[in-house]
Amino acid sequence: MDNQILIGTSYYSEHWPRERWPEDIRLMREAGINVLRVSELAWSRLEPTEGNFDFAWLDDFMEMASREGIRFILTTPIEGSPVWLRHKHPEVVRADEFGRIHADRGFHCHTSRIFAHYVARIVEKMAEHYADHPAVIGWQIDNELRAVHCYCDECRIEFRKWLRVKYGTLDHLNEAWGTVFWSQIYNEWEEVELPAADQLTKSISQLLDFYRFSSDATAKHLNMQVDIIKRHAPHHKVTHNSLGLYIWLDLYKLAKKLDVMGVDLYPDVDTDNVYTCLNLDVHRSVKRDNMWIMEQKNGYFNYSDYNLAIEPGLVRFWTYQDIARGGNAVLYYRWRSGRFSWEQNPNGILRHDGTPRRAYDEIKQVTRELAGFSSDLAGTRVESPVAILHSYDQIWAFESQKQYSNFNYRKHITAYYRELLRMGITPDLIDPAMDLSGYAFVVAPSMSMVSDEIRENLERYVREGGCLIIGARSGMKSWENTTIDTPWPGLLSDMAGIEIDEFEVLPDHYSNGIVYRNREYRVNSWLDMIKPKGAETLAAYTEKFYAGRTAISVNRFGEGRVYYVGVMGSRELIRDILCDVADERGVVRQQLPDDVFLTRRSDGRTRFAFYLNYGREPRTVSLAEEGTDAMTGAALSGEATIPALGVLVVRTGA
Amino acid sequence: MDNQILIGTSYYSEHWPRERWPEDIRLMREAGINVLRVSELAWSRLEPTEGNFDFAWLDDFMEMASREGIRFILTTPIEGSPVWLRHKHPEVVRADEFGRIHADRGFHCHTSRIFAHYVARIVEKMAEHYADHPAVIGWQIDNELRAVHCYCDECRIEFRKWLRVKYGTLDHLNEAWGTVFWSQIYNEWEEVELPAADQLTKSISQLLDFYRFSSDATAKHLNMQVDIIKRHAPHHKVTHNSLGLYIWLDLYKLAKKLDVMGVDLYPDVDTDNVYTCLNLDVHRSVKRDNMWIMEQKNGYFNYSDYNLAIEPGLVRFWTYQDIARGGNAVLYYRWRSGRFSWEQNPNGILRHDGTPRRAYDEIKQVTRELAGFSSDLAGTRVESPVAILHSYDQIWAFESQKQYSNFNYRKHITAYYRELLRMGITPDLIDPAMDLSGYAFVVAPSMSMVSDEIRENLERYVREGGCLIIGARSGMKSWENTTIDTPWPGLLSDMAGIEIDEFEVLPDHYSNGIVYRNREYRVNSWLDMIKPKGAETLAAYTEKFYAGRTAISVNRFGEGRVYYVGVMGSRELIRDILCDVADERGVVRQQLPDDVFLTRRSDGRTRFAFYLNYGREPRTVSLAEEGTDAMTGAALSGEATIPALGVLVVRTGA
Amino acid sequence: MDNQILIGTSYYSEHWPRERWPEDIRLMREAGINVLRVSELAWSRLEPTEGNFDFAWLDDFMEMASREGIRFILTTPIEGSPVWLRHKHPEVVRADEFGRIHADRGFHCHTSRIFAHYVARIVEKMAEHYADHPAVIGWQIDNELRAVHCYCDECRIEFRKWLRVKYGTLDHLNEAWGTVFWSQIYNEWEEVELPAADQLTKSISQLLDFYRFSSDATAKHLNMQVDIIKRHAPHHKVTHNSLGLYIWLDLYKLAKKLDVMGVDLYPDVDTDNVYTCLNLDVHRSVKRDNMWIMEQKNGYFNYSDYNLAIEPGLVRFWTYQDIARGGNAVLYYRWRSGRFSWEQNPNGILRHDGTPRRAYDEIKQVTRELAGFSSDLAGTRVESPVAILHSYDQIWAFESQKQYSNFNYRKHITAYYRELLRMGITPDLIDPAMDLSGYAFVVAPSMSMVSDEIRENLERYVREGGCLIIGARSGMKSWENTTIDTPWPGLLSDMAGIEIDEFEVLPDHYSNGIVYRNREYRVNSWLDMIKPKGAETLAAYTEKFYAGRTAISVNRFGEGRVYYVGVMGSRELIRDILCDVADERGVVRQQLPDDVFLTRRSDGRTRFAFYLNYGREPRTVSLAEEGTDAMTGAALSGEATIPALGVLVVRTGA
Repeated sequence: MDNQILIGTSYYSEHWPRERWPEDIRLMREAGINVLRVSELAWSRLEPTEGNFDFAWLDDFMEMASREGIRFILTTPIEGSPVWLRHKHPEVVRADEFGRIHADRGFHCHTSRIFAHYVARIVEKMAEHYADHPAVIGWQIDNELRAVHCYCDECRIEFRKWLRVKYGTLDHLNEAWGTVFWSQIYNEWEEVELPAADQLTKSISQLLDFYRFSSDATAKHLNMQVDIIKRHAPHHKVTHNSLGLYIWLDLYKLAKKLDVMGVDLYPDVDTDNVYTCLNLDVHRSVKRDNMWIMEQKNGYFNYSDYNLAIEPGLVRFWTYQDIARGGNAVLYYRWRSGRFSWEQNPNGILRHDGTPRRAYDEIKQVTRELAGFSSDLAGTRVESPVAILHSYDQIWAFESQKQYSNFNYRKHITAYYRELLRMGITPDLIDPAMDLSGYAFVVAPSMSMVSDEIRENLERYVREGGCLIIGARSGMKSWENTTIDTPWPGLLSDMAGIEIDEFEVLPDHYSNGIVYRNREYRVNSWLDMIKPKGAETLAAYTEKFYAGRTAISVNRFGEGRVYYVGVMGSRELIRDILCDVADERGVVRQQLPDDVFLTRRSDGRTRFAFYLNYGREPRTVSLAEEGTDAMTGAALSGEATIPALGVLVVRTGA
Repeated sequence: MDNQILIGTSYYSEHWPRERWPEDIRLMREAGINVLRVSELAWSRLEPTEGNFDFAWLDDFMEMASREGIRFILTTPIEGSPVWLRHKHPEVVRADEFGRIHADRGFHCHTSRIFAHYVARIVEKMAEHYADHPAVIGWQIDNELRAVHCYCDECRIEFRKWLRVKYGTLDHLNEAWGTVFWSQIYNEWEEVELPAADQLTKSISQLLDFYRFSSDATAKHLNMQVDIIKRHAPHHKVTHNSLGLYIWLDLYKLAKKLDVMGVDLYPDVDTDNVYTCLNLDVHRSVKRDNMWIMEQKNGYFNYSDYNLAIEPGLVRFWTYQDIARGGNAVLYYRWRSGRFSWEQNPNGILRHDGTPRRAYDEIKQVTRELAGFSSDLAGTRVESPVAILHSYDQIWAFESQKQYSNFNYRKHITAYYRELLRMGITPDLIDPAMDLSGYAFVVAPSMSMVSDEIRENLERYVREGGCLIIGARSGMKSWENTTIDTPWPGLLSDMAGIEIDEFEVLPDHYSNGIVYRNREYRVNSWLDMIKPKGAETLAAYTEKFYAGRTAISVNRFGEGRVYYVGVMGSRELIRDILCDVADERGVVRQQLPDDVFLTRRSDGRTRFAFYLNYGREPRTVSLAEEGTDAMTGAALSGEATIPALGVLVVRTGA
Repeated sequence: MDNQILIGTSYYSEHWPRERWPEDIRLMREAGINVLRVSELAWSRLEPTEGNFDFAWLDDFMEMASREGIRFILTTPIEGSPVWLRHKHPEVVRADEFGRIHADRGFHCHTSRIFAHYVARIVEKMAEHYADHPAVIGWQIDNELRAVHCYCDECRIEFRKWLRVKYGTLDHLNEAWGTVFWSQIYNEWEEVELPAADQLTKSISQLLDFYRFSSDATAKHLNMQVDIIKRHAPHHKVTHNSLGLYIWLDLYKLAKKLDVMGVDLYPDVDTDNVYTCLNLDVHRSVKRDNMWIMEQKNGYFNYSDYNLAIEPGLVRFWTYQDIARGGNAVLYYRWRSGRFSWEQNPNGILRHDGTPRRAYDEIKQVTRELAGFSSDLAGTRVESPVAILHSYDQIWAFESQKQYSNFNYRKHITAYYRELLRMGITPDLIDPAMDLSGYAFVVAPSMSMVSDEIRENLERYVREGGCLIIGARSGMKSWENTTIDTPWPGLLSDMAGIEIDEFEVLPDHYSNGIVYRNREYRVNSWLDMIKPKGAETLAAYTEKFYAGRTAISVNRFGEGRVYYVGVMGSRELIRDILCDVADERGVVRQQLPDDVFLTRRSDGRTRFAFYLNYGREPRTVSLAEEGTDAMTGAALSGEATIPALGVLVVRTGA
């Protein structure tokens, strides 16, 4: 399985008559599909009544399809719990801030013991049943999990336990949260509540811990299922299909026990494609390994304000983009367009009537093109010489109190990310506690909270010769979301060689100027006024009472260097700084036309450079390497023109 | 009563001192008012305490007024239930999605047996009491009924009963709703729930059925009252005053037992007058007969963002507009401006202080003008050679999942309706199951769901020589809101001679072009890509990858023709198509200046053409007929100039 | 204490280590701070467990600070009730419209007997303990009180009692509220409910009374605490820090038992400064005496969309603005920036790390400057020759039904207020029932409701020679929020010598014209059409059907005059009318540059004129008086240039 790129789709055999199955399988094979995701959302059919399991209908289909060489990724069908279960145990559904059962698709309580009992049983049954099935290669746990922020009684008790483990004593909790503020000191553990609507005030430290607790609860819910499957079928790969740039689950923690990270992708036709790349790069970085795209949009999304036609070539483009950024499996959602309830748009490779849509032919084209280099490609990994720090704890801290409507952590990250892509550099997006030693430089936008562990990790990296760029609004807070009582940027001060005197937050209709290397830039959003304590000033403000104060600094620390970029709001500034740092650090960068995206995958011997043109016009690029066209074998060098929505894969090396 | 146009108002004698009554009656007579709506919202006064009825105060007033020749329409006073009733039985008020009693004016539970008991009793008492009153001509049931979407326990049980009647078995329900989707299969009837907030997912088929159930429940509530009145007073006309273009009640079903349809009209001074016409035409079409305007705004509305002064002439204009479109009764709301709570604006013919507002003189003018032709007019009906299909089931299906924010079913209907009015053609707006045989052509915008009954009705009409125009987004769904598994437009394919390959949904900032009869149009919103299967292409797209594909087609079917207009967004296109079809079908159309509206009423012998100028400038029209001015008797032919807000009624024939 | 301006801050000694206290006190003294607000929000520390009080930590700090000459304003720490109290008695928190406990900071139920019990006990304990403390000069009751609109069972019972006291009998209530409307007549007191979500309809008269009841309940909660403190410490001044232009508390009633009114001020850096002035002038007018600014922003606000840097000079500017408009105490919020939960922005005079921010030096500058004239200034009062009527009952009536989205009572008041400031005139903003005899003229914008008491007050004032300007939308309603049944403006008709025939409400995209003294103005929003009944026409409309009708009138009444300005929407018109009336009434007005604000304080002997330049450019003013610079002693006359954010205090007299 590892020696080829998997191309597949989701199939719901239970939605269609048995007589249709052979025709579907025939069409799949013709298109080159080699893997199917099955059993997703089928709990009602797998356990029609409590404790009575029926896998026969699925076995029949799998038997029929595996005879044609198709393999399977099974799904634990938890997202859609059966009606009989909720009718008997309404409390398996999450309670809202008012304690009311308030549901939405998948909104189960992940701390519920009763729910866990039913989940464990069906997963166990399935794992037993399919452990030795020769065509099964893996499992997807649940579907697009969310941290549901449940406010039920069981969650209240579990939250207290979680806090007790974390803080040990109530005194430590009172101190960490600063409950002396607004007079909310706890005397007894029983007084600690969920941050629900009946609370006179919710501390933002309490909120942050509640978000952590909720994310942990969902990870626990996933891990329980992973453990069951691994017990029965240690040879199966286990994945989960993440909701993408969803903020409430810490993917770095969630993915710990997974063999391979998965993600679902539904890009709009007129989207800013940088966000699709970001989404892929985040998921590749979670395990710093290739990933599976478990649902790749190929038809209309069901929850849009509008739906542009998917132009010829776009499904092919998306497929190569997935692979280019680390996808070793691409499963299109879904085989045949859905007929029922919320998802009735033509979202399948086939129409509702069973005839192929245009996507079918594009997929066929992709599988033929891949045939020549799929096995060489499968063993390669994406080259990412640079990292951006990306922390869910930071996201949640900012969510606990947004404070400034024009500040957005993900937007700040994307500002740096976008310019790196424009330079042909593919960054990893990693948690600040992860090992940094391999990166030429590391960008840390808005590290508002810093822990000792993170400080040590960063200092070690820089001291040993690394290069760190810290972005504005950093180093103000403890890891528990309270402000430190020492000068800012706190634990980052020493390595950055600065202190922050003041800051100002400008909305879009205001700005200030700075001069960096003799060029002027307009900046706004968050502006830090820096007091160098050993650092060198790289840029200073030009207006208002703080004209002349430092806006950007750089400091030598150990063998390395630390930049502090105390401003936001200028795309040009970020581009110029990143270019300077890349050159300084010897990271190769490449001038790319608008809309062209470049990544490279290699295994040390063979290297594939993917040039993808997201534009609706042809674009000419200067190739950095001489090689061959991976699809055609034609020799390539110098310039190449890539058609609209076109893909060029340059193969070099062995 | 049928031999004259009724001109009346609402009078709340219980709001004013008895000593004032004679003066009010004198002023009414002087203005020519011949009918009063009474007893509306007076439950607390008619049954001051449980089971104790007091009609004396109303009898006294009716005795006094009937001596002056005034007649009465009684109202069942249900909308404002007494405080003592709700204090004793809070559950007569609707429950919201969370099961909480959540009220608003008129928000009673229409399935509540307890509520029905109290309603039946007071209606019975009133019917007994007034059945033989010589001045009573009719009854209004309740007031501006709404389908309240109640989520109480009684509604849950009744909903299950309603579903059991409809589907017979749970298997049929599971299949019809597609509960296999997201694993929501029901094993027991007790598992079927209202689509409330505690449901993990609500199927959109379930939502549609819930909307149908709720509308039916309100119709049942109304019919119970109609039956009681008819038992006691079969000679009284029974009506209901509808909320107008309110979407949650199926008026075609609601009106089944009514003798005459009624409606309340509160147009803004600066409204798009086409919507007022649409409102009137819908209500006339419900029973395809003349109707009563039970509340015609004559003063300030109480719930507006602002209130422009009602200019001199506007109350008269509204009155003639009501009559021109089928009104045989116009009752102004209300006699004297209200003093209490939510309705304190000067909304009466008299001021709060009892002196006449300007409207008083206009009403006097109207009744004098009508005197000369009211009796001839009363027996005529509006000529409507064309129909537009208008289905509440379609509205509810689109409400169950809007899917595209720039798509709106009523807007699509209005696009066709508006252009017909501009051509001097008055359409009926009828349910798709109603008899179509009399119409020169029929327009069916966005028939997303099609039943066998509707298909047969349409095919019969076309086969026998009719002409049908189908609008985009049609024929995709079953009558239970699931997508069909055969090619689109499904049950319409055969008659239209086409299939739909694909569609695209464009928001306002995108468009495509089409060419129809050598003219180019910009289209957006919903664009169908048509594959002709026997039909002729009338227009094709000019841009994007589907340039050249069919956008509009026409097909011969039996003796008739079926157009499929697969695009939206161009007013000019709809106008040009309708002109072409009208000419082809021999429907007389007339070039009208902006702001001039034309309708005709006739009884086969006498014909009245109403030219109404909604503009604030005089407009000159070419009269299609030679005749006399119905008000003055002056001869009319050729051109005529109608003053701002002016009315010209041309009488022809006997 | 009365012989100097108090300059202080809020200190939370419980938030910082004891070892830090001496340094804080040293820095305070160095800055010239002479008073501290303490014990606010410290209930958890003062009564750590039920019935166990611990004042030692506070005593220790006060002992240490008072040795350095610092004095104290204690706060009753009620806003942040302890967790143990709410854990034991969740019902002390307000219930929302659905009867659910739904909290927010300070949202306690002010009718709860249980809550009152706990409040009374801790206030009693504190009053006993600190009554004789030599450094205590006063008390702040609670913090930024809100009328919480609680819908709990206890409030239901208390609301009925309150209504029984007000109306005596249910018949009176039914009549006053007009419950005959929509059939909501009460038969029993037990049927009268709170205007909660389960009510079929809430009368707007009921809403108004509920708002009055809620405001009264909060006043009762405050007064209970005042009484306790006064019993123990009659020599202490009692204040409350109002939320400012918050609408739900009637400050005129709330302040009855207070010795001195207080307010909290958090102006945005780029605010329309007129609102800050209005805020100050309202609070000075509440008791028509000098006031205390209990919280003056000196750093970043925690709840803004953004935060502009507080420019050098702005903290000083705010301080003098407070004093110029009647502030005899200015306490900056807060001493050291907060570290915990919702308030972590640098909002202190010191940074989080304990070092002084720029504000520190400005405060030091202020205290030095004041040193020379603080004692002379403290005994003076603001000169306000004019009054604007400002009624919370009117606000609540408009809130009970907004009716027109472009009408806003406070905006209408501000339109007049702004132009008076531009002319150098400082108005009082007083309740309509307050004594008017001292004012040269009185402006009454939108007196929609008028009581007999108010009519008598106004008529007495005018009859004895006063001058009243009534604004549009006046005189339509009874004091119970129902419309009168006599001609408008009802109780104001006689003195204004007019009737109102009609009105029109124009949104921003419409307007009409009027001509006043040969100049044309565009007007919109609310336009009254006036019928003079003895009054003289000053301006007439120029457009639409009511062109020529009176828009502005003036009437002689007794020895005085009554203007009725029936229009809104023109700043120039209001300016010109006010200039004319000021000249007529001999009120000195002064041409001021944009951004310059002028007030005067005097004690009959000494007079201080405050010229404050809120602009970011220097401004030159013509001084109306010859005198000396209060800060420098330099002679001043003729013109003076005030720097950006500058302050000039001209001293005249003794």
